[in-house]
Order: sequence, then C-alpha cells, then structure tokens
Amino acid sequence: MSFQKLDALGRTLEALEHALAILGADEATHMAVGGGEKRAEAMSALAGMYHSRASAPEVADWIEAAGRESLNEEQAAALFEFRRHYTNLTCLPSAFVERQTGVRVRCEQLWRDLRAKGDWASFAPALEEVLALVREEAAMRADALGLAPYDALMEQYDPGNRSAAIEPVFADLKTFLKEFVPEALAVQRERLARRPLKPLSGAYPVEKQRELGLAMMAAVGFDLTHGSLSVSHHPFCGGVPSDVRITTRYKTTEFLSALMGVLHETGHALYEQNLPKAWAHWPLGKARGMAVHESQSLFVEKQIGRNPAFWRWALPVVERHLGESWSLEDILPHVHHVERGLIRVDADEVTYPLHVILRFELERDLVCGKLEVADLPEAWDARMRDYLGLSTIDNPADGPMQDVHWAGGAFGYFPSYTLGAMMAAQQWAALTREHPGADEDLAKGDFSGVNEWRRKNIWSQGSRWSTPQLMQRATGEPLDAGHFIGHLRKRYGG
Amino acid sequence: MSFQKLDALGRTLEALEHALAILGADEATHMAVGGGEKRAEAMSALAGMYHSRASAPEVADWIEAAGRESLNEEQAAALFEFRRHYTNLTCLPSAFVERQTGVRVRCEQLWRDLRAKGDWASFAPALEEVLALVREEAAMRADALGLAPYDALMEQYDPGNRSAAIEPVFADLKTFLKEFVPEALAVQRERLARRPLKPLSGAYPVEKQRELGLAMMAAVGFDLTHGSLSVSHHPFCGGVPSDVRITTRYKTTEFLSALMGVLHETGHALYEQNLPKAWAHWPLGKARGMAVHESQSLFVEKQIGRNPAFWRWALPVVERHLGESWSLEDILPHVHHVERGLIRVDADEVTYPLHVILRFELERDLVCGKLEVADLPEAWDARMRDYLGLSTIDNPADGPMQDVHWAGGAFGYFPSYTLGAMMAAQQWAALTREHPGADEDLAKGDFSGVNEWRRKNIWSQGSRWSTPQLMQRATGEPLDAGHFIGHLRKRYGG
Repeated sequence: MSFQKLDALGRTLEALEHALAILGADEATHMAVGGGEKRAEAMSALAGMYHSRASAPEVADWIEAAGRESLNEEQAAALFEFRRHYTNLTCLPSAFVERQTGVRVRCEQLWRDLRAKGDWASFAPALEEVLALVREEAAMRADALGLAPYDALMEQYDPGNRSAAIEPVFADLKTFLKEFVPEALAVQRERLARRPLKPLSGAYPVEKQRELGLAMMAAVGFDLTHGSLSVSHHPFCGGVPSDVRITTRYKTTEFLSALMGVLHETGHALYEQNLPKAWAHWPLGKARGMAVHESQSLFVEKQIGRNPAFWRWALPVVERHLGESWSLEDILPHVHHVERGLIRVDADEVTYPLHVILRFELERDLVCGKLEVADLPEAWDARMRDYLGLSTIDNPADGPMQDVHWAGGAFGYFPSYTLGAMMAAQQWAALTREHPGADEDLAKGDFSGVNEWRRKNIWSQGSRWSTPQLMQRATGEPLDAGHFIGHLRKRYGG
Repeated sequence: MSFQKLDALGRTLEALEHALAILGADEATHMAVGGGEKRAEAMSALAGMYHSRASAPEVADWIEAAGRESLNEEQAAALFEFRRHYTNLTCLPSAFVERQTGVRVRCEQLWRDLRAKGDWASFAPALEEVLALVREEAAMRADALGLAPYDALMEQYDPGNRSAAIEPVFADLKTFLKEFVPEALAVQRERLARRPLKPLSGAYPVEKQRELGLAMMAAVGFDLTHGSLSVSHHPFCGGVPSDVRITTRYKTTEFLSALMGVLHETGHALYEQNLPKAWAHWPLGKARGMAVHESQSLFVEKQIGRNPAFWRWALPVVERHLGESWSLEDILPHVHHVERGLIRVDADEVTYPLHVILRFELERDLVCGKLEVADLPEAWDARMRDYLGLSTIDNPADGPMQDVHWAGGAFGYFPSYTLGAMMAAQQWAALTREHPGADEDLAKGDFSGVNEWRRKNIWSQGSRWSTPQLMQRATGEPLDAGHFIGHLRKRYGG
C-alpha cells in the first residue's frame, strides 16, 4: 500500500531531521570550537540524504497511488500535506539549487565581513547575484504552484498566505502606527515625568537568572521532561518535539532581556511539545509555518509576558529568585519601554512592525523587478524617514545590510514576524471572548485555561489547515489588524 | 575509479557515524529525560542506514576492482583495512543479525531488572538463548575468516589477537597474581601500620573538581578546542575525533575517583584526537581496537596518573584547585590502595586482571561448548575462590550476573581490558628505554616527550597494523606479561 510506503519514508526522514536538529542545537551550545568543520560536513551530508530521499521520483508515484487508496479523513489530510511538501521540495532542478546554495553561502560570508565595515559598495554585487537567482526561483515556484512569484516564495514559510490579503492588513497597521508611535512616545514621556524610572540594581548572577527562567518556563507550561534551557550566543528554540532545546543569553546588569527571551522561546517550545504525536513523522504533524510559530512565541512573550496582569503574579517570583523587590508601577515602564531605533531586532512591539512593513514592501518590489539592488539604500532611507523619522543614508550597515535574510536568499520570510504579532493579538482577543477571566488567571499564575485554548485551536492542529484557514477556525474571522491595534492602544495609548 | 567510490562511501559513512556518536554522547549528557524513545528510534534508523550502505553488495565489487587499480602503499593499506571491515560486517546474514539483536536487547533488559533482584534462575534461560546465537555467530564468523570460533569473535574487537597467543600470557600473569595479591596486601598492611592513612577532608565542591580535571586534561595533552568534559552517570569517552566528549561523575566526599576517571578518559581522548586526519573517513584512520584503546586510557591513568613521579607535579595542582595540602607519603596510599573485591569495575590494577582472566576462561569455554549456562554459577565461584579467595555462590548478582557484556552478546571483549593494561606497561617500558628521563618529565609536568613517543608509535598509526603487529613495531617485541608484572612488583611489591 502506497500510503504505508509514505509512512515508512516519513520515519526515515524523521530520523534524519532528528539528527540534524540535535546536531544543530549541539553546535550552538556544547560543540568544541574546533569541531565546526567536521560538523558542517556531517550536517551537509545528512541534509543531502534527507533531500534525495524526500524528493526521489518514486515518491511522486506513491503520492499518486495513495490518492486512489481508501483513506480516512485524517489520512487524506496527511496525504494532502505530504503532496504540498513534495511539490515545494521538488519544483527546483537540483543543479539550480546547488548553484543557488553556493551563491547564498558566499553572499552570507561576505555579509558577515562587510556589514561590520559598512561596505555597501562591495556587498551590492553579491546581493545582486542572489536576487537574480531569487527571481528565477520565484518564477519556477510560481509556475509549479500556480501562484504569483512573491506569493510562491511566501508559500514556503506560510502556506496559504497571499500578498493580496496581507497588503491591506499591513496598510491599515502602517497608517495606524505612523500616527501612534509619536503618541506612545509622548504618553511615555509624560508618565516618566510624573514618576521617574527606577533603575535596575544591575547585580543579577547568571545562575539565579537561570533558575528564574526555569521557574517561569515550567509555570507557563514548558514540559521539562521533554526539553531544556541552555546558553547560546543567539537565543533559539531547536531540537525535536520530544526534546526541545531552548537557549538564552544573560547579562548580569539586567534580567528582563534574558527573561523575555526565555518566555519568547518557551512560546515556540510549547507549540513543538504539543503537536499531534501520532503524526510526528508526517508533514501533517509539524508546526504550520513561520507566522503561526511566531504567533505562539509572541503570545507568550507579549500577550502573556508583558501583560500587567502577568506581572502581578511574576513580581514575587522575580523577588524570590533575584532577591529584589519591585512595585508594578516601577517594573512596567521597563517592560513597556518604547523607543524609535534603526535596528529591527532591538525594536519594541510598537515600532517593530514598521521595520517589517518596510522590508516587506522593498522585497516585494525587488522580487517583481520594480526595484534594483543599486537603488536599495535610497529606497530604504526614504521609508525609514517616512515611517520612523530616522535616516540610514550614511549608514548602510544599519540600513539594507542590517539583516542576514536577503544575503541568505530568504525573501518572503519577513512578513511572518508581524503577521505573528497580529495573530497573537487576535488569538488573545478570541480567547478572552471565550474566557473573560484570562487576566485574572495570569495574575494567579494559572496558565491552564489559556493553554487549553491554544492546545485545542492551534497546537493540536499541526499542519491540518493553511495559515489563513487556521486563523479563521481558531478566531472565527480572517486576519484583522484591528486586534493588534487595539492591543497596542490599550497598552501604550494615552 | 573504484577506490574513489570507496572514498566517497567513506565520507557518507563518516557523516552517519558523526551523527550517531554525537547523538549518543548527547543522550548521556544533555538529553531531556523524556527524549529517549524518539532518540532510540532515530539512532536505530541511522544505524540501519549505516549498515545498509556499508554492507551493500556493490561495495564488494568496488573493493575487488580497487585491488586491481594502481594504488600507493598507503592506499593499499587503506583498501586492506576496508576489506577486513567489510568482511566482518557482512559475514552474518541480516535475518540472523535481526533475530540476534532482538534476543540480546531482551536479555539486557531482563538483566537490568533481575540483577538488582539477584534472580539467576529467571535470567539463565535468556542468557542461554543469547549463548546459543553467539555460538552460531562464532561458527559463521569462523567460517568467513578462517579462524577458530572464539578468535573470530575477538577479531571484531582486536584484529589479529588469537587465543593461542593470549593464553600463555594470561597464564603467566595468573600464576604471578595468585601469589602476588597476598604479598601486595601484606605490604600495604605493614605500611599502614607504620604510617596510618590520612583521611581525605571530604569537602570537594563539584565546580572545583571540574576545574582541576580540566587543568589536568590540558596538561596531559587534551586539546580543549577539539573536545570537552561534562557529567554523566557512567563515565565515557565519546563524540568524534574533532570533538571528543569525555565525561566523569563527582562525589563531593572524595576527589580521586573523579580525577582518575578524567585521566582514564583523557587517555582514550588523546588517541582519538591524534589519529591520522587524512584517513578519518576510512577504517584505516580509526583507532586499532579495544585493547589498544584501553592501553591508551590505562597508560594515562595507571602508568602516568598513579606514578609517584606524576604526583610530585600533581600535588601542588591539586592544592591550588582544592585548597588542600598533601604530602606524597599521605596521598600515595590512596592512589595505590589494593583490595580484594567481588566487583570488576571497582577493582584496583593489581586485582583487576584476575577478574578478567576468570571471565576469559569462562567465556572461551562457553563459546566452544565445554561449559553450559546452567553450570556457570559453580564455575564462577570455583575460580573466584581460587583466584581471589572470595565466594559468589550465594550471590549470583555479584557473580555471573555482574556485567552486562554477556547479556548483550559481547563475548571475546573481556580480554581487551587486561591486554590493554599489559600493553600500557610494555609501552611505558619501551618508552623509558628510549627516554630514561620520563619520570623526571612527569615530575615537572612535562608530557611532551611521552606524548611524542605515543604519537609516533601508536596514535599516528591508526589501523595500519593488526593489534600484535602494532605492539611489536611500537615496543620491539611481542606482548609479554613480564612488563606488567615488573610494573606491579615495583609499585606494590615488598
């Protein structure tokens, strides 16, 4: 039976994914510094084995034949998602993929060196090469999937997301934020004038912060028998659903960035730990995509972790671990600090979406040919001045050289960050319609109701639905910027 | 070119070995407790991929064809070892291997449960099943390799080792030890009567012991850019040559067991870190076998780490890290403590070989059919009383149920431990003939000359020679119990 052949293939692919995931997490946390070269060789060989098995021509025959077998509804959904996965994996010729990998790796390496030097002139030609191949890739994907080129790129990250649906939502959000950022800053100024900021003591030993992070993870629902917390230079959530590896990094001068980082990665981890286990070796059993994943991390970090109600419960926990006592009025200005800045990864939840919308607009134009790499610094600067009142024209390192995504050929990925933030706000709104007492639950450190809603509506669904379908089913409506706007108004408005 | 095909296959196999080695080390050190089931699935799938690629029928054709190609001396050696490896891997039908794996895993699981209960009666039938298959296996291996059955089993662990050569060496050693153990104990008694044992302070924080271990590792030659030290329940040396993972476990009441464990694993690690890198993906570039590997760990632990000259250097290092000052006369009785006991893994270097010789004699008889499982408790007890004056007849858990090896089907492995101890003594003897100042080097903490000798004679040789050839070339003579006997006399004699 062909469905069984796909099932067996899934188990083989799961083993290779397991190895790649653990080797990747290990590389960032426990590998000896000199182990990198052999690790890269091993991982590239394993990735090659994965690709050649997952994309083998006979798999197409099995998919075809399985479609004629008698399948129950869940099996049919599993087959549908397997086919989607296979199509996305095989729509580029392998010679093209190899050429593209070489160009991307070279451009990423150049980026590491040239960003530090702010040398746009030397970087631009490499980025042009990457872009030329991305345009080719988008055309091939578009052809195979029957989608517009940029949509075909997004499809890899968020199945079902389309520019036509996202553009009006982003437009609403942009219109709002261009007015709201100055308002939120004014509100913050006035509040700090009334009550000056109480600085952090600046003495937070790593071991105590770690214990605090573990206590928060466990409280929020992280299963410590199926995961762990360690340290890495860039925080991440990796590993496998049965053993989720999250990391953070610590500063001894302040504790909020590590703690918020732990909560963010815990959000990713909860999604992974609660996916449907019976389908773990099928695409159906995997997380839906980048935007939904980000909605889960931002749900824990922003909707829960920066919620004043949460801090009513969290303050005594912080005090117990760090030996420092705070009032709600003194901690919240730290938790809700807003600041205009050039750097996306340092941005707060109010200004962050403008960084993303800027990139979305530019990369959409780059892919369709309306914008060329040569014109990118000016285009970036113009939008940066328009959206945040800041200029990067003399500072390309903090402008179009800021992120690694484009150098690595990842076009169509940026929207996921802000889509995730909006989805999280919309999920919170839907959840509180059903459970009006959610804030009181957080204030008591009771996350069971909140998690039950997410388990039922998001986690248990795996990849059963497209991204917009999942949102529609979970919240009863399509993505609507209004919920996120309402959230920001309530938390940061006057 | 067929040699190139083998080279490419070697790179694929190396990637799978890399994954298996790191996943294995991770399992014992950093894996979440609930991650075991999926880890076992993944590792078993990867091991299956390794086996099916390494034993594929076309590999036999490549080996054959490569033998007709024009190869230099090193390539010819690489091909020879590849063929040996392939023959050992393919001489059992896969249906047999699968059946055997099932029986072994069941017997190991039973062993874990029944050893704790001392329930020999329930364990014996499972061990009989394992033994029946081991006899079949030995016959098939013997047939394929043209060796006697027991020798064919040993060949997996120590290529070239033969019972006919080992038996007289073990006989010499046994004759000596049966007289020498009482002598060493009497010497110890008299010495302790003259100068009572100074007890350890019993307050050794784990973090300080860890720093001491790292300092010793680095001093002895461990490359900390290509390896690390962590904690596990059973100490081991794992990982890959570019990233060797050694582990230990700590008691806060005493520091010697962890430190000696670290030195032992460092000995294994030095071998791995210094294998010929150009051949890392060929059997030629791997460590020779279990006995030689054990000779390297015991070289560092016993020849160096329990050498009084070493302690002249080590005492101030210990004092620096643990804040405790010892005289040589007070520490050596701890380092050289001798005690008759039932348990092999707790034995000191004087009594340990008798535990191994007992097992060697019994397993040789079990494999050839001279002994049956039903008669094992009596046979074990008789030898235990003869060699060490202890009885296990009422205590099978500390008798023939003591080790997991037989339950897991590993027959022919036990001799490696004591062969390794003898080889280490013989290597030390050869080294000090060339470098009479080796003891003074140790006393200064200078391990460069000692390591240079080992690099040249052992480490750089990989699997170029059979085990006896390697010893002959390194030390100028075949294995001779005399060196180990001399070593024990000097350290423990009157």
